Amino acid sequence: MSSSLIAKSVAAMTGYTPGEQPRGNRIIKLNTNENPYPPSPAVAAALAAFDPATLRRYPDPMATAVRRRIAAMHGCSVDQVFAGNGSDEILALATRAFVENDGSIGYFEPSYSLYPILADIRQAARRPVALGPDFGWAMPDAYAASLFFLTNPNAPTSLQHDPATIAAFCARFPGVVIVDEAYADFAPTDCMPLATAPGNRNTLVMRTLSKSFSLAGIRFGYAVGPAELIEALDKIKDSYNLDALTQSLALAALNDLDAMRANVARIVATRTRLTRVLREWGWRVPASAANFLFARPPDGDAARRFNRLREAEIYVRYFPGPVTGDSIRISIGTDAEIDRLLELLAEENR
Amino acid sequence: MSSSLIAKSVAAMTGYTPGEQPRGNRIIKLNTNENPYPPSPAVAAALAAFDPATLRRYPDPMATAVRRRIAAMHGCSVDQVFAGNGSDEILALATRAFVENDGSIGYFEPSYSLYPILADIRQAARRPVALGPDFGWAMPDAYAASLFFLTNPNAPTSLQHDPATIAAFCARFPGVVIVDEAYADFAPTDCMPLATAPGNRNTLVMRTLSKSFSLAGIRFGYAVGPAELIEALDKIKDSYNLDALTQSLALAALNDLDAMRANVARIVATRTRLTRVLREWGWRVPASAANFLFARPPDGDAARRFNRLREAEIYVRYFPGPVTGDSIRISIGTDAEIDRLLELLAEENR
Repeated sequence: MSSSLIAKSVAAMTGYTPGEQPRGNRIIKLNTNENPYPPSPAVAAALAAFDPATLRRYPDPMATAVRRRIAAMHGCSVDQVFAGNGSDEILALATRAFVENDGSIGYFEPSYSLYPILADIRQAARRPVALGPDFGWAMPDAYAASLFFLTNPNAPTSLQHDPATIAAFCARFPGVVIVDEAYADFAPTDCMPLATAPGNRNTLVMRTLSKSFSLAGIRFGYAVGPAELIEALDKIKDSYNLDALTQSLALAALNDLDAMRANVARIVATRTRLTRVLREWGWRVPASAANFLFARPPDGDAARRFNRLREAEIYVRYFPGPVTGDSIRISIGTDAEIDRLLELLAEENR
Repeated sequence: MSSSLIAKSVAAMTGYTPGEQPRGNRIIKLNTNENPYPPSPAVAAALAAFDPATLRRYPDPMATAVRRRIAAMHGCSVDQVFAGNGSDEILALATRAFVENDGSIGYFEPSYSLYPILADIRQAARRPVALGPDFGWAMPDAYAASLFFLTNPNAPTSLQHDPATIAAFCARFPGVVIVDEAYADFAPTDCMPLATAPGNRNTLVMRTLSKSFSLAGIRFGYAVGPAELIEALDKIKDSYNLDALTQSLALAALNDLDAMRANVARIVATRTRLTRVLREWGWRVPASAANFLFARPPDGDAARRFNRLREAEIYVRYFPGPVTGDSIRISIGTDAEIDRLLELLAEENR
C-alpha cells in the first residue's frame, strides 16, 4: 500500500536482529555478551541521589562532565571525545559523517553483523574483508573504502589483532577507521594510543560501558580521535542524544574504574577455566580477548548444542553459515552459570 | 587537514544550536519550553524502585511495555507505535525512511529551526512553506515533497492550525506527513484521530514527554500511524535506542495522566494571565495553544527585551530575522517566575 512512501533501500532491507532478550528468573542468558555482575556501587549511589524533579529540564546537550572525565582518562582534550547513545549511535552517525552518497563501508567478515545493515541503511557499497585462516588478519594491500569498522577484539571470533598491524593499516587507509573496542577491557592490549597520537588524522577508537562496566541498560558509548572528526559527528547528532540519567550514571561508573576492573578479573578467570575445560573435551576454542568464547564442538555440530542449551533455558548465540556455523558464541557468565552450561555440554560430550 | 575524510555536505553545514542550558540557582529559564513543575510522583516512585543491578542487561529493544501503554491510550495497535530517544530521533529517522537521496523535505517557515538542518544532513532539498499573515495557514495547492514536518501547535508562533485543514492537506499530499504535536496537551484540540483513522496511509502524529509530562531529561518521544511506516522506522533505528530507565520512567508517567493534566492546567492559567497583561501593555500576543508565548513588544524591539532580561538572568528565546525578529518566545514558567519577568518588562514599558 504505502510502499512508494518508503525509501526503496529501506523497503528492500531486513533490519538487524539483536540477540534475544528473554525475561525470566530461571533463564541463563549467555547470548548478548552482557556482564554477569552488577555495575559499581557508585552507580547505585548516583541513581539513589538523582533528583527526579530535575528531569523536567533538558540534559546537557554536550554531555560535558562525562566527556571531560573521558578526556582525562585517556589524556586528550574534551573536543577529541564524542559521547553517544550506545556505540550503535556512533556507528550510525559515522556512516553519514564520513561517507558520501556514492561511498563505501568496510568491515571484517565475520564481525559485528550490524555493519552490513548500517551500509544498507546508508545506501553505501559494502566492502567486506574476509578474515584469514583461524580468523587472522588478511587485509589486501590495496584495500580502500570511505569508512572501515574494525572490531578489536573482534566478535564473534573473540580474537584481538595486533595493535601494530592495525596502526600500519590506519596509516595507509584513505578513509576513516573506527576501531570498535567494545571488549578492550577484557584484552591484554588496546589501540587507544592510536586515537590520541598527535599525527592521527583518520582513526577513532570507540568504547562502550555496556560490557566491562555492566551498563548495557543505560546506553553509553564514546569515541576518541581527531577533533575535526569529532566535530563532524557533533554537527549531525540529535541535539540531546544522551539523557540526564545516562550522563549521571556513566560519570559515576567512569569515576570507579576499580569496580570495573574487579569484575573484569573475575570474568577473565572464568573465561580461562571454561576455555580449558572445553579444550580438554576436544572443542576448538580460540584464545579469547573478550568476555565471550567462540567455541567449536568436536563434531562441528554447533546447532545441536545451541538447541540443546536453549531447551534447558541456557541462551547462547549461534550464527549459521559456512564460516561461523560450526561454533557457538558463549558469553562468560558467573561461575555458577558456567557450571550449569558445562553440565549440559558434558551430557552431550558422553 | 582531514576535510576530505568528512562528507562534503557535513563539512559545509552548521549544526543546530539548541537553546542555552545555563545552570545556576538564580537563573529563570524560560528559553526551551520546559515545564516549570516536576513530573508525576509516579516517576519519582519508579526511579526509587529501579534496581541498578538490572542495568547490566540490555533494555527491551522494542520498548514493548511503554508502546503497549501508548497504543491503549490512543486506541490503536502496538505495531502502530514507534518510540524514540526524544522526538528528535524520530525526525532524523524519518528523513532516511521516507526520503530518497534525490528527495525533498518540507516544513513551515517559521517553525522548528531544526528542520532545515535535518534536510541538510540528509542532503535532501529544502521545501519551506511560508506561513500567511499572522502566521496563518497558506499552503500552495500544488505543493509536494517527500516528507513534511508539520508542527501543530507551531513553534515559535504558538498557534494551532485547524485539524480539518490539516486532514485535507494530508489526504492530498503525495509524501509522508509528520504532525509534530509536541505541544498538543496545551492545546484545545489535536490531530491524533488522523493517525489512527483506518484509511490513513501517510500521516504520523508525534508526541513527546518533554513538555507536558515534565520529562525533557529522559528523552522520550513517540509516533503513531500506519504500521507500514512504523515498520520502516523500526528497521533503521539503533537496536537499543531507548535505555532501561527511560522506558521505565516513561511508562510511569504515561500511567498517571492526571498529574500531567494538573500541571498543564496550571501552565494554561499562567499563560492566560501573561497574555492578558502583555496585551494590556500593547504587545502583540497571538493566542497561544502551547506552553509559551510569541510576543511582540509595542516598538518591535525584541532584541532589547531579550538582552535586558538576560542581564537579569531571565533567559527567553530570540530568533533574529525579518519574520521572527520583532518578537521574543517566552516559555510559561511558574507564577513567581512570570511575576519576575513582568517586573523587568514593566520597567521597559515605562
